[in-house]
Amino acid sequence: MMRRIRLLVSYDGTAYHGWQMQPGQQTIEGTLQKALKEWLGEEVALTGSSRTDAGVHARGNICTFDTASSVPGDRFVYGLNALLPSDIVIQASREVDPQYHPHRNVVQKTYLYRVYTSQFPNPLLSRYTHHLYGELNLEEMQNAADYLKGEHDFKSFCGPRAQVKSTVRTIFSIKIVKTEEEMQFYVTGNGFLYNMVRILVGTLLQVGRGQRKATEMPAILEGKDRRLAGPTAPAKGLILWEIRENL
Amino acid sequence: MMRRIRLLVSYDGTAYHGWQMQPGQQTIEGTLQKALKEWLGEEVALTGSSRTDAGVHARGNICTFDTASSVPGDRFVYGLNALLPSDIVIQASREVDPQYHPHRNVVQKTYLYRVYTSQFPNPLLSRYTHHLYGELNLEEMQNAADYLKGEHDFKSFCGPRAQVKSTVRTIFSIKIVKTEEEMQFYVTGNGFLYNMVRILVGTLLQVGRGQRKATEMPAILEGKDRRLAGPTAPAKGLILWEIRENL
Repeated sequence: MMRRIRLLVSYDGTAYHGWQMQPGQQTIEGTLQKALKEWLGEEVALTGSSRTDAGVHARGNICTFDTASSVPGDRFVYGLNALLPSDIVIQASREVDPQYHPHRNVVQKTYLYRVYTSQFPNPLLSRYTHHLYGELNLEEMQNAADYLKGEHDFKSFCGPRAQVKSTVRTIFSIKIVKTEEEMQFYVTGNGFLYNMVRILVGTLLQVGRGQRKATEMPAILEGKDRRLAGPTAPAKGLILWEIRENL
Repeated sequence: MMRRIRLLVSYDGTAYHGWQMQPGQQTIEGTLQKALKEWLGEEVALTGSSRTDAGVHARGNICTFDTASSVPGDRFVYGLNALLPSDIVIQASREVDPQYHPHRNVVQKTYLYRVYTSQFPNPLLSRYTHHLYGELNLEEMQNAADYLKGEHDFKSFCGPRAQVKSTVRTIFSIKIVKTEEEMQFYVTGNGFLYNMVRILVGTLLQVGRGQRKATEMPAILEGKDRRLAGPTAPAKGLILWEIRENL
């Protein structure tokens, strides 16, 4: 009998060509599949909740696979961590209902984008932050973020490689946290388009630097044209923070 | 005329064999010297304030060198950062009095040691934290730390490679901060022996886990024998946090 196993996966994406398996490239999915094959002697197909891009990190991505093995669900975390490289760590594993699906059962996702704002880079943070020196107008960025919240067609905030039926998504919240050395953007929504969080942050950073006004946001959304939004912020500042599911 | 330049240096020590130049090894000092030679065309001798060990990080180490160049002191930060790898970053540079010396003028140093306490490692922190799962008794560790504060002969907390006249040092404070996922030790003193902070933390962690009592500390100090103290905590959790000088 086939059983469905769900993994909660964290990783430092620096060394990887993203989540999705690609021939000749080191990917998170490929590395997990190899470890599972080594452990179970079984070729499994993984389904990831978020196909994070090259260089993007995860605190908690979710994936599932079906297996014929009788290993108890909560044991996979130990078996896999023993075989995985140190930049990929399983945080939890369990057996789920065979109807569970890491796309359909996801209720919301939160991404964190970290910008390091001191004058010179911090080598202890440079793998996980985008360095941008200078004042950022927090209030104006929050005003801009308010326009982006809610259900919208985010076509202007969607990278070129996307192949999706609909570009309508709902952003539940954009929380911007200023610390002594960082500006952190927590973006929560029901799902995100290709590069969407990075384009959104790239646009908010332009607002923060006074290169755009918050009040331009409605026109960017309505224009449904990628060229209207700001640049795609670098991958290394992005962390898939949390996924909430109906289990 | 020779001028003395002071650099404030931060680095991720993961890829380096420590501060001090060694033949055939990649070190922080050697990498800085090479960049200075490339930029100034001059072979300079560096004097570091703290010769951090292999794998140890720094938020703010200090070093000086004498140069015949006429480059203004505050320009070195830009010139060097353009030539250095991304895991070494100069945070500040300036010309100092030729009498200034990064050993003699140092008033106090603070090291931070980070322990990650969740069940499974966090790949986004594993370069900069020691992973130790389980409850740590904060109160008992603080009691132990209180015995270690003040002026003592720290011979029991000194690694084997030390070549020093005196093993007497003064610890001004040991601040232990507990967060949701970490136990952080900020240790401030007038100077530290070889491996001293790591042995001190290794001993405090034994206390935190109930393998030793806080009240054993005076006997460890009085015994003046390395074998009486706990193990040397791993290098990667240690960060040279801050150096205070008389300028």
